[in-house]
Amino acid sequence: MIKIDFKKGKGLIPVIIQDASTNEVLMLGYMNRESWKKTMETKKASFWSRSRKKIWVKGETSGHVQKIKGIYLDCDGDTLLLKVDQIGGAACHTGFRSCFHQRLEKGKWKVFGKRIFDPKEVYGK
Amino acid sequence: MIKIDFKKGKGLIPVIIQDASTNEVLMLGYMNRESWKKTMETKKASFWSRSRKKIWVKGETSGHVQKIKGIYLDCDGDTLLLKVDQIGGAACHTGFRSCFHQRLEKGKWKVFGKRIFDPKEVYGK
Repeated sequence: MIKIDFKKGKGLIPVIIQDASTNEVLMLGYMNRESWKKTMETKKASFWSRSRKKIWVKGETSGHVQKIKGIYLDCDGDTLLLKVDQIGGAACHTGFRSCFHQRLEKGKWKVFGKRIFDPKEVYGK
Repeated sequence: MIKIDFKKGKGLIPVIIQDASTNEVLMLGYMNRESWKKTMETKKASFWSRSRKKIWVKGETSGHVQKIKGIYLDCDGDTLLLKVDQIGGAACHTGFRSCFHQRLEKGKWKVFGKRIFDPKEVYGK
């Protein structure tokens, strides 16, 4: 049986986060072995922050954690798909439900959908 | 308005492919600027193959092309989400509908779903 291939991405694997009930794609994050292990132990999504270079528990500041409902691996073993319950209703740090809230329309990126929370209130900045 | 950030991934951006009608996640591929341009021009998904190091038109051998129905960019501009019509019904080169046909169950990866096509027949190998 195929195992997770952390080598191809030099220690990191892309992880697609999908809403378990609506199948909406909420975000894409990256995991290293440590954040994968933490995700398995806590049943909540943890990632590796490429910018901050540290483990990042999704929702640790906002409370908007992602409870793991299903874990899927692709044919090559180099991409994960997690189905989650998104606590708080929004995955994006900007307050939108999904990080993918920009749609290409006639050659321009248009923001659609509405903010579920105000980042200033949640993050205090 | 945010633009696609090809720099963060050293010229490559991960692209999530989702079925436009069912919202099933079918695969994840990578695009460079050239494959992105080609995708825009042809309205069919083209990727950069990291293993073969060349542009790859999805379905060029099998005929199972992906017609673009919607294009979404994430908040950081470093991940794309494409909603597609998957011609032939299967995105995975193994013949499964989705590349994510392995599910973690009691600590083991279990294959689920059924093959839509036989790779031997489609690829002749």
